[in-house]
Parts: sequence; C-alpha cells; structure tokens
Amino acid sequence: MAAMLRVLGIDPGSNVLGWGVVEGDGQRALHIAHGCVRQKSGAPLPDRLSRIFADLSEVIAEHKPHAVAVEEVFVSQNVRSALVLGHARGAAIVAAGAAALPVAEYTPMQIKKAVVGYGKADKKQVQEMMRMLLCLPKIPAQDAADALAVSLCHVNQAAWNQRANAAIAGIKLA
Amino acid sequence: MAAMLRVLGIDPGSNVLGWGVVEGDGQRALHIAHGCVRQKSGAPLPDRLSRIFADLSEVIAEHKPHAVAVEEVFVSQNVRSALVLGHARGAAIVAAGAAALPVAEYTPMQIKKAVVGYGKADKKQVQEMMRMLLCLPKIPAQDAADALAVSLCHVNQAAWNQRANAAIAGIKLA
Repeated sequence: MAAMLRVLGIDPGSNVLGWGVVEGDGQRALHIAHGCVRQKSGAPLPDRLSRIFADLSEVIAEHKPHAVAVEEVFVSQNVRSALVLGHARGAAIVAAGAAALPVAEYTPMQIKKAVVGYGKADKKQVQEMMRMLLCLPKIPAQDAADALAVSLCHVNQAAWNQRANAAIAGIKLA
Repeated sequence: MAAMLRVLGIDPGSNVLGWGVVEGDGQRALHIAHGCVRQKSGAPLPDRLSRIFADLSEVIAEHKPHAVAVEEVFVSQNVRSALVLGHARGAAIVAAGAAALPVAEYTPMQIKKAVVGYGKADKKQVQEMMRMLLCLPKIPAQDAADALAVSLCHVNQAAWNQRANAAIAGIKLA
C-alpha cells in the first residue's frame, strides 16, 4: 500500500484564493481542512500579496502538508488580469518554497478529469464531487472546492507514480 | 533638510531581476549597492520564485532599506509573458512585505522622467545617467541600472512629498 500523502491544494486568485488540505494514498482520501483567503476590496497589491503569503504560511505551519499543488492558470484571459493573477500565484508559490515544500502544477482540465472524470466539468460539479468524495457535511465554497480538487488530483497522481515506479522496479528486478 | 531615505529599487524579471540600493534626500544621492538575481536557464518556476524571495530577503537584511520601489510592468506584452512577469513581481513584493517594508510602484515613464528628465529615454541613457549621478566607477548592467533608477526615482519623490507636506503645514500654520 502506498504511504499517505498530505497535500495543500491552492486555487490562486487576487480577490479570493482557495486552499484545501487532503491526505490520501490513491485509494482513500481524507479531508483535513479548507478555507479561503479573502481580500478587503480596494486593498493595495503589496498588502494582498503579503496577506496571501502570511495566511498560507500559517496554513502550512498548522496542517504540515508534504507537498503543495497549484492550479495552472488559463492563458486565454487578457494581459491585465493575467498579470494580476501571476502576482497572486507567485506569492502562493513563494509561501510553499519558504517552507521548503515541493510544488506541483496541474491544468484545470487535468484536475477536473482526475476528480470528476470529465475535463469540462463545471464549477458546481466539482463542488458537489468534493462534498461526496471527502464526506463533507456541506458543499464547500467554489474557490475552496477547486483547491481541494487540485489537492486530491495531486494525491492520486503521486500514488499512481509510486505504484508505476514500484511496478517498473519489479520488472527490472525480475 | 529632508532626512536621508534608503530605498531598494527592483526591476522585476523572471530570467534576470535587477536590484539597487540608493540613499538620498532629494539633493544628494549615494550609491549603496546593486546587483542581479540571475536564474539558471531551464529552472522550474517554483525554484525561480524561491530564489527571488531568498536573494531579495538577503539584500534587505544586509542593506536595511526603509522602503522598496518596484517598476510597474508594461501591459502591452502578451498574456503568457505578463503572467510569468507577474509571478516574479509577486515574489519580489512578498519579500518586501515579509520585511514589513512599504512598497511604492512607478511606471517606466515616471522613472525615466525622474532620472533622465525624458520619459522615452533608452536603456543606454539610463545606464549612463546612473553611472554619472551615483558616481559609479563603471556602467552598471542594464537590469541593475533600471533598479537603481527606480530607487532614485522613489528617493526624489519621497523628498519632494516631504517638502510639499512641510510647505502645506507652513501655509496652514500661517
């Protein structure tokens, strides 16, 4: 059986950043915690980024994940919003790096395929699926659900890689 | 006479990030230090951002600036490069925030106007001007020169604001 991996998933955003911590081995998945970093409207950019860094550092210190997984960003947006989103993502990734955690990245399509089985699933399907898979008492907020999904996606991917590597090692040994 | 202000200027970039520390009161300007954070080619994004955060945190600890000034980014680039640059800028601003330093932002035009007197000055003019204004033994690298320029721009702006506030206070008292 694969070892339990605890992953902090992050759905970056400059107004609301979702985070979720999931532990699993590819067969079982346990919900540990989830939440959002909500910014005050009109807050200046440096304050927003410091907030993301501080809050995520606190989440990392409290829940002690083994790895961080971040949603890759759609590049089909306009330049201005890509720049703003880049700042928020940068601040989140720096928080992971400051805690010496490895960072994995997944596209929205990879995440949806992994957790809903369908790459074009809508936001509500992801929310409902997270509630069911993680046995939550109620549907999590959209940004937190997306973060839990990227976390679960990485847990499953890591377990799969581990099994694949074990199988390859077995073949080599045989 | 205005108090001496020490400013860390940053010219953000994901391959090369320039930094420069200048101290001044709007009349005198002293060069303290400058340099570049150069990334290994092909380094993954999380490593690049951690490097920016760590190196700038070290610069801040060593040179103890009172404030940080960052060049605002052109938004006329494509979405992909805006996103990458946003990450680098985010990491730099988080380093300033982690040291509890205020962050000011200036457009390239404001910076050039402040240090060369002409908003459309080219890169070489900025480099040469930095060498002269800061009495450097040789022309600084382009990214470092841009960083020194944003630093000097903030030193002058802050001194101007201080004088303007003092004048306004004088008028109110009279």
